[in-house]
Amino acid sequence: MSTQKAQELASLLKRIRDCRPLVHHITNMVVMNDTANVTLAVGALPVMAHALEEVEEMVSLAGALVLNIGTLTAEQIEAMLLAGKRANARGIPIVLDPVGAGATSFRTQNALRLLSELRIAVLRGNASEVGSLIGVAGVTRGVESISTDTPPSIIARNASSHFGCTVAITGARDVVVDGERMAEVDNGHPLLAAITGSGCMSTSMIGAYLAIEPDPWLAALAALISMGVAGEVAAVKAGGPGTFRSHLLDAVASLSYEQLCERQRVSFL
Amino acid sequence: MSTQKAQELASLLKRIRDCRPLVHHITNMVVMNDTANVTLAVGALPVMAHALEEVEEMVSLAGALVLNIGTLTAEQIEAMLLAGKRANARGIPIVLDPVGAGATSFRTQNALRLLSELRIAVLRGNASEVGSLIGVAGVTRGVESISTDTPPSIIARNASSHFGCTVAITGARDVVVDGERMAEVDNGHPLLAAITGSGCMSTSMIGAYLAIEPDPWLAALAALISMGVAGEVAAVKAGGPGTFRSHLLDAVASLSYEQLCERQRVSFL
Amino acid sequence: MSTQKAQELASLLKRIRDCRPLVHHITNMVVMNDTANVTLAVGALPVMAHALEEVEEMVSLAGALVLNIGTLTAEQIEAMLLAGKRANARGIPIVLDPVGAGATSFRTQNALRLLSELRIAVLRGNASEVGSLIGVAGVTRGVESISTDTPPSIIARNASSHFGCTVAITGARDVVVDGERMAEVDNGHPLLAAITGSGCMSTSMIGAYLAIEPDPWLAALAALISMGVAGEVAAVKAGGPGTFRSHLLDAVASLSYEQLCERQRVSFL
Repeated sequence: MSTQKAQELASLLKRIRDCRPLVHHITNMVVMNDTANVTLAVGALPVMAHALEEVEEMVSLAGALVLNIGTLTAEQIEAMLLAGKRANARGIPIVLDPVGAGATSFRTQNALRLLSELRIAVLRGNASEVGSLIGVAGVTRGVESISTDTPPSIIARNASSHFGCTVAITGARDVVVDGERMAEVDNGHPLLAAITGSGCMSTSMIGAYLAIEPDPWLAALAALISMGVAGEVAAVKAGGPGTFRSHLLDAVASLSYEQLCERQRVSFL
Repeated sequence: MSTQKAQELASLLKRIRDCRPLVHHITNMVVMNDTANVTLAVGALPVMAHALEEVEEMVSLAGALVLNIGTLTAEQIEAMLLAGKRANARGIPIVLDPVGAGATSFRTQNALRLLSELRIAVLRGNASEVGSLIGVAGVTRGVESISTDTPPSIIARNASSHFGCTVAITGARDVVVDGERMAEVDNGHPLLAAITGSGCMSTSMIGAYLAIEPDPWLAALAALISMGVAGEVAAVKAGGPGTFRSHLLDAVASLSYEQLCERQRVSFL
Repeated sequence: MSTQKAQELASLLKRIRDCRPLVHHITNMVVMNDTANVTLAVGALPVMAHALEEVEEMVSLAGALVLNIGTLTAEQIEAMLLAGKRANARGIPIVLDPVGAGATSFRTQNALRLLSELRIAVLRGNASEVGSLIGVAGVTRGVESISTDTPPSIIARNASSHFGCTVAITGARDVVVDGERMAEVDNGHPLLAAITGSGCMSTSMIGAYLAIEPDPWLAALAALISMGVAGEVAAVKAGGPGTFRSHLLDAVASLSYEQLCERQRVSFL
């Protein structure tokens, strides 16, 4: 890739650390601690708040809004809609993680409702989650993508066109697509799939980048590179998923411009 | 013990890793991350879902259902009953963790309600929790078993007879009982009691084994051996409860057939 | 400081470990696991319970009550009021953490409501959170204190006088004030600010000390020294926020009387 593009992507990290934007999460209870810590480690400030009485006021303070349906309830979806509409009115970008879409109709329908009633900047999921939202046959086992017959790049292109937003599909190779551009990221490590919530952490990372970069495609791309590189660095020190999880936060906190320039493995298609 | 029995127990692990069953949890918020990660580390796929609108559909996809009342609410109990009835109708086994039974009447009564309205495959708790469900005097301080005058083996036998299910009582020595069989497991390490949620992790581990082994007594026994052996392996590397928690997940992920054969310390009574 | 005072403060730890008091938490979902584990590591027994049906019975078993509004909802505030009134009636001390007060009016008003309807022993927050409760101009960005023009010691004095309770403001230098006494603690490490929930852990630690020490000012002071010293010990072994979090729990679990005597850096003003 062009060295200039690599430098541009790597330079976004410094902007997060300089601005320390607030990233408002309405998210799942399973990995709420990890997503808060990864947001803090990359240089932004996380806040988790879901009460109907405060989400509009809280999101107004934020640089980005993260919506993650991993442990959704009907009331939580109402909070997401309230916060999301306020975010849209204020021009605050939203990233949506449709965790488990395709596994139950409740998840699929609510993810579609959020996509329909809100203007989403980035949709981030695995291939079967995103595929289920555009009717691509696939197998979601719980919140894990098991298989799809359709290549992720095709699913991402179709979803991007259908929903009119940037779509990031993560997996062994990540794909980031908007209406005109497509990139693939080959950074990462199998241990990322061995812990719960690494996808959710990627989504929070996208939230942090969205807060400082107006181009959602660039923000998503830089975020996935950051997670991937951090995963590679952490894996060297890890003895398994438990120690990997600790080293992953260390690696995110110590990410540098040089590391991101040198280690990024991105193909522009 | 017979080498053949040891091999039979140790061989179940491979079945989890081959099948990758989905284990549906309706569980407490304190250790939701650890229970998801331990399920993933042993080779199964965790999903946490508690909305009334989706629990029946989600559990239908699962190989086992884990119910844990550690942070119960009235609505969560309704979700457990909905999911549990569907699980019973589909022949999907249920493991129940009556966290804090005996501490408040709300916990005791709801644990008894679940045992009465659902067909539970395995009941897993500490001595005072299980004792409180059959009227044995004991002291539960919050969610910790402080003391009981009655030996755990007697409590387990009586509870198994009373509820007609496998009962697993964990402690310095674990006891696993069904109508006809009793075994004691001497694996484990004191550091398991130094972190919150090691009991809950054992329950999730039982869920993973139940998903692939139709005999609940064998499944519970194999699960407690696995947790105990992993605890021993992790303790060697740990400097205290915080690092132990990380190494415990590493140890679960690296459990092997050979390890489980060689290290298991089980007495059949 | 006088060696005698240092010894008195350090000696409280042994009382926690001898008594193993139950510390009832109604707290936020983001760091519930960490706060439970730190409570256990210092030697007390945590229990997290928020159902309206059981909070009064649960708190009656406890030595202290921790109220933390980090992910508050209207129903959770009702549970806090129920539990708090029972605690007051029984003479069980309460520590309140007004997480994010000042960020939204919902948080500010509910923190004020708890302070008005309950007798709080210790109020623990950062400078902008506590400042917002007494009308001091400041900037809260989400749940982080960004800046205040007023020195923390003045905010603490005014808040203590206004609310009639011990006030502990944590930061690079911690301040603990009651009507007559003020102390500053210089223990700690910047990595404490690099993980989410270190403030919440300090609050839980205060809960553990309150359960065995009737003087709230002494209890809060001893707790902040303990967290600060543990942070210093953990930082030596940490490679970043992720490994720091693990080592912090190890360090809390291994705190000793000697360590607390030798390392405490307290000024009495």
